[in-house]
Amino acid sequence: MGEARPGTERDDRILLAHGGGGELMRELIRADILPRLGCDAGAVLSDSALLDLGSGRTAFTTDSYVVKPLFFPGGDIGTLAVCGTVNDLAVVGAEAAALSLAFIVEEGFPLDDFRRVVDSVGRTASQAGVRVVTGDVKVVERGGADGLFVNTAGVGKVAEGVPLGAEHVLPGDRILLSGPIGNHGIAVLSAREGIAFETTVRSDVACLGDLAHAALTAGGEGVHWMRDPTRGGLAAALGELAEDTQVEVTVDETAVSVDPDVRAACELLGLDPLVVANEGKLVAVVAEPAAENVLTALQDHPLGVKAAPVGFVGESGPGRVVLETRTGGRRLVELPYGEELPRIC
Amino acid sequence: MGEARPGTERDDRILLAHGGGGELMRELIRADILPRLGCDAGAVLSDSALLDLGSGRTAFTTDSYVVKPLFFPGGDIGTLAVCGTVNDLAVVGAEAAALSLAFIVEEGFPLDDFRRVVDSVGRTASQAGVRVVTGDVKVVERGGADGLFVNTAGVGKVAEGVPLGAEHVLPGDRILLSGPIGNHGIAVLSAREGIAFETTVRSDVACLGDLAHAALTAGGEGVHWMRDPTRGGLAAALGELAEDTQVEVTVDETAVSVDPDVRAACELLGLDPLVVANEGKLVAVVAEPAAENVLTALQDHPLGVKAAPVGFVGESGPGRVVLETRTGGRRLVELPYGEELPRIC
Repeated sequence: MGEARPGTERDDRILLAHGGGGELMRELIRADILPRLGCDAGAVLSDSALLDLGSGRTAFTTDSYVVKPLFFPGGDIGTLAVCGTVNDLAVVGAEAAALSLAFIVEEGFPLDDFRRVVDSVGRTASQAGVRVVTGDVKVVERGGADGLFVNTAGVGKVAEGVPLGAEHVLPGDRILLSGPIGNHGIAVLSAREGIAFETTVRSDVACLGDLAHAALTAGGEGVHWMRDPTRGGLAAALGELAEDTQVEVTVDETAVSVDPDVRAACELLGLDPLVVANEGKLVAVVAEPAAENVLTALQDHPLGVKAAPVGFVGESGPGRVVLETRTGGRRLVELPYGEELPRIC
Repeated sequence: MGEARPGTERDDRILLAHGGGGELMRELIRADILPRLGCDAGAVLSDSALLDLGSGRTAFTTDSYVVKPLFFPGGDIGTLAVCGTVNDLAVVGAEAAALSLAFIVEEGFPLDDFRRVVDSVGRTASQAGVRVVTGDVKVVERGGADGLFVNTAGVGKVAEGVPLGAEHVLPGDRILLSGPIGNHGIAVLSAREGIAFETTVRSDVACLGDLAHAALTAGGEGVHWMRDPTRGGLAAALGELAEDTQVEVTVDETAVSVDPDVRAACELLGLDPLVVANEGKLVAVVAEPAAENVLTALQDHPLGVKAAPVGFVGESGPGRVVLETRTGGRRLVELPYGEELPRIC
């Protein structure tokens, strides 16, 4: 409090004062955040944004991001924060309309890295057609946080007449998966542990709004449930479906695509690709008559070229996921316990 | 990953696996979070909540909370997280309809403290008449975060015909303040630094939805601008108003109420009460003809008993805040730089 203020030259690191609610915070927001988000730098910094969402149901979601390292092949914490929230909206049939963006930054964090993350947020949001409308910056002292954490929340309008949800899932429904699994988790883990594979595995991080919309357009009410299988991977997504609906879900192991490099990395690390996180994949449970249409729609989209049917919903019974293995056996897929891959998103 | 799982007995600390997206996370959410938020523990855990907000404008806001210590006289990080977001909505004339709730927890954090925070969130939300509808839990390893950080985002409907905003502020408008300032900042600082004063200063943390509504009902279109002066205190709130509108704001120091213990603490710590954070105060800029009505409405509310007119808006000119001091002088109140009080909210 008694210290001299830094000179007029801009420091190259985040200071505690950047989060103090005063002049320096306003300068950071005006100079380093708003222009990167495509906002007018002279815009009034209001605590709340006002939106006109129209009538109908609104979807609302949030996620915090603690991924380590912050930058990894294929993306960074900024792309992740936008895509993760856009995708949570997409899988309930909502088009993202507006995002909030909140940073918790450790004192001393390089300002250039901060700008790089905000750039990623801006670029990814623009590509996904969503605006960042409100935000927050908090700074904690050295050792108080590991670099940078990001939280995004999102709101979006739900298309009318889309009865999506576990309660709509029926025996005989097909399970479609939009592409190969495990890339995000392996990309982050490789970057974190400094493990080099023959080629660099890149995260699949992508915003799925368009892809989900294509699936819904093609399948209409035949699309019963969607999910982006992130933490806990495909196993957690389908495990939750089975548990919530008390049905047996069967997955054909040979139909689940895994890139060779990802498979090799999983074998090396003793990981089942089914539990490894994805950030740009869509799972859709679709009524059998609509499945072919939805599959074609997914395959026609750049993010779903390798989409495939990977299983089906069985009769009511114990809520569980059964894997038909490539050797012709059957094994139970357990909902992962949780310790597999910390700080993956 | 090769470690044995903990036994069936529940551990008393947060584990990395609580944030892994698997079975243990679902159990934490079902057993320790949802019941405390008044949600059905059997409710399906969806990634996005679906809301029917009706038509009209929606306000959307977010804040992260990094207060240290987590528990302080008068409140904790949970009460703060709910009130902060409810208040950001209230000052734009919106009634909070739904909150998101995201935790970043350090591995090893005591589960009892976690439950205590979630209890506070549930109780405070219930008192404020707002529901927590979606959330997230991330766990980082020991040393990765300082205990617990919370993010809340909120959505609410804006009452029609309420033209609130800096652009509506006019020369001659009165500035009303709902009560004494500085209590929150001093309460947190005392708890953090272990400073004991004669009596314990308690945080003023409170949800201002009702109070703001009372002001708007009494003043109608005469209420031009509202703000809850948090980080940076009253000085930052009025400094931003002056800067955004390019008007001179005059504040009468003798009219700004400061509790004796808070004043004593500020003197001891070398702090100006004007820059100390509040979490349950409302500043309203009101057209002169409506000022008396609004003042009475504030005073009639339990959170505004000590409400008073504390200044006025002058003519256009340099955007600045001038304090008429108790000794009869005039001094410029600078927008605080930011380093005054880290981790106060």
